[in-house]
Amino acid sequence: MKGTIVQILKQSGDWVSGEYLCRELGVSRTAVWKHIRNLREEGYDIEARANLGYRLRSVPDVPYPGEVAEGLGTAVMGSRIEYFVDLPTTNDEAKKLARAGYPEGTVVVAETQSGGKGRMGRFWFSPRARGLWFSVILRPPVNLVETPQMTMVAAVAVALAVREHTGVAAGIKWPNDLLVEGKKLCGILVELNAEIDRVNFMVAGIGLNINIDSKQFPPELVGIATSLKIETGRHIPRVPVLRVLLQSLEIWYQRWLQEGFAPVLEKWRELCVTLDCPVTVHTIKGSYAGHALDVDETGALLVQRTDGTVERLVAGEVSLRKR
Amino acid sequence: MKGTIVQILKQSGDWVSGEYLCRELGVSRTAVWKHIRNLREEGYDIEARANLGYRLRSVPDVPYPGEVAEGLGTAVMGSRIEYFVDLPTTNDEAKKLARAGYPEGTVVVAETQSGGKGRMGRFWFSPRARGLWFSVILRPPVNLVETPQMTMVAAVAVALAVREHTGVAAGIKWPNDLLVEGKKLCGILVELNAEIDRVNFMVAGIGLNINIDSKQFPPELVGIATSLKIETGRHIPRVPVLRVLLQSLEIWYQRWLQEGFAPVLEKWRELCVTLDCPVTVHTIKGSYAGHALDVDETGALLVQRTDGTVERLVAGEVSLRKR
Repeated sequence: MKGTIVQILKQSGDWVSGEYLCRELGVSRTAVWKHIRNLREEGYDIEARANLGYRLRSVPDVPYPGEVAEGLGTAVMGSRIEYFVDLPTTNDEAKKLARAGYPEGTVVVAETQSGGKGRMGRFWFSPRARGLWFSVILRPPVNLVETPQMTMVAAVAVALAVREHTGVAAGIKWPNDLLVEGKKLCGILVELNAEIDRVNFMVAGIGLNINIDSKQFPPELVGIATSLKIETGRHIPRVPVLRVLLQSLEIWYQRWLQEGFAPVLEKWRELCVTLDCPVTVHTIKGSYAGHALDVDETGALLVQRTDGTVERLVAGEVSLRKR
Repeated sequence: MKGTIVQILKQSGDWVSGEYLCRELGVSRTAVWKHIRNLREEGYDIEARANLGYRLRSVPDVPYPGEVAEGLGTAVMGSRIEYFVDLPTTNDEAKKLARAGYPEGTVVVAETQSGGKGRMGRFWFSPRARGLWFSVILRPPVNLVETPQMTMVAAVAVALAVREHTGVAAGIKWPNDLLVEGKKLCGILVELNAEIDRVNFMVAGIGLNINIDSKQFPPELVGIATSLKIETGRHIPRVPVLRVLLQSLEIWYQRWLQEGFAPVLEKWRELCVTLDCPVTVHTIKGSYAGHALDVDETGALLVQRTDGTVERLVAGEVSLRKR
């Protein structure tokens, strides 16, 4: 009902009489007024005049399902959008919905996450309304051994969308962080629920720093993290960013399923900033220095150790060393 | 409290006065009597005589936690046992408990499963009290790509336990069914919940046909499935079987974590009945005839097609062809 009012006001672009709204919606003037009041609370700036009716002055930059869906044009990604003000983590909520049978492409988005986490269980800073913290439910018909590829599909999709939409030269750090000149802009956390020979579902969680100011980062992230606002010097509306991310995810996800991993990997290599670089590798078994040579066809990182041997890294973390 | 009464009666092996039980438990005679009544309902055959007290005549062959734990002697497997009369599936319950933080080794066992399932979402026949339908929560420190190995760890552990305990020559069909002369005795369904570079938990579900008579199988399983009773010609108590299964799982799971996949794979090859055999391969993309050559070091099945090419099978199903 609220969504219909917003649509009517948007389409008109001018004053719409209360009478008209009542007729269209089949409800009383009091009911219309209540919805208008709710919409104002949600951030819709709606003018009301006794003899003119209602006029929409501005729409909030909030990833409400109706706002994101407008002009989205995807078949799968965002086919359903669940918006939350607060969540412990969007990945956990998405996994819950996936278990309950929510379809592929369902997006769970929250203004803030109280327990936002990155890879390896690390904390992920998710300040209210300053970024996009969301997760997408996926049900790809792939084998368990192919699932790590999805991390790289997401990294490619997000990096390209960010580049095209904002001009910020986001690069990929193996396997799936997005960096701008060495500072973290975006993290991707893919989780899955599977049998050994069947993937029940995957959840791709994406945290993209958008309108965070330098001063807002907690001390441990100063000099380590960045945001689209810091990089561009301007405030970036979030809803259009979410739309282009979902559109890009749709393109690259479909390409992966239809053409396989090769085109994804090729684009990933182009966007990667940690190939042919001195790196430090951190694994559960310890750390060592090496030189990142390439990724193989499975997405594993090939690192040459100082003694010349080459390790194939399927999990773990690398950090760039100054040359 | 009930558990303590059973222990006292077992240790005595003879009559135990009501007075003694009251004193030991610090409760009234009425309370003791209530517990005895409950125990009788659970299948404990307890004799009561006015001037003698209580005597345990027999213990039910039901995988109650206290019964299974007696003499179990494992450090991890069965450290906690959750018994259910009915469950949709023990795997689903185990996954729920794993998400809630239940420790590694937690066993979920049910008398019957209303929605018992095998690999590929197939139905698994789980008649009440006629087999062992259970799942174990695992939290192995392995990479995602290593998780399919757990299926083979479980197959080896169960096959060896069945052989040693009952003499039934259970063999493994790739990757994880146990067969006796081509008929299915046991199915194993491993599921997992993971991030790309961290396993949150795995659940190994095991369904072992024990005291099912030939006539009890539904038509679609006649000639396809078997049970320990059918193979041995005698009724097999279930509780001791569950104990040996957990003991064997503990041994092979620890060996896998400590020594790696090689010793598991070696034993798996010994027990496998589908190597060097004509097989039909069924995958999501279709079926083809071939010859099963070997498994590689990751557990993938190597199948030579009729045109001589060798396929590496990481998922799917094989059936034996008559030579």
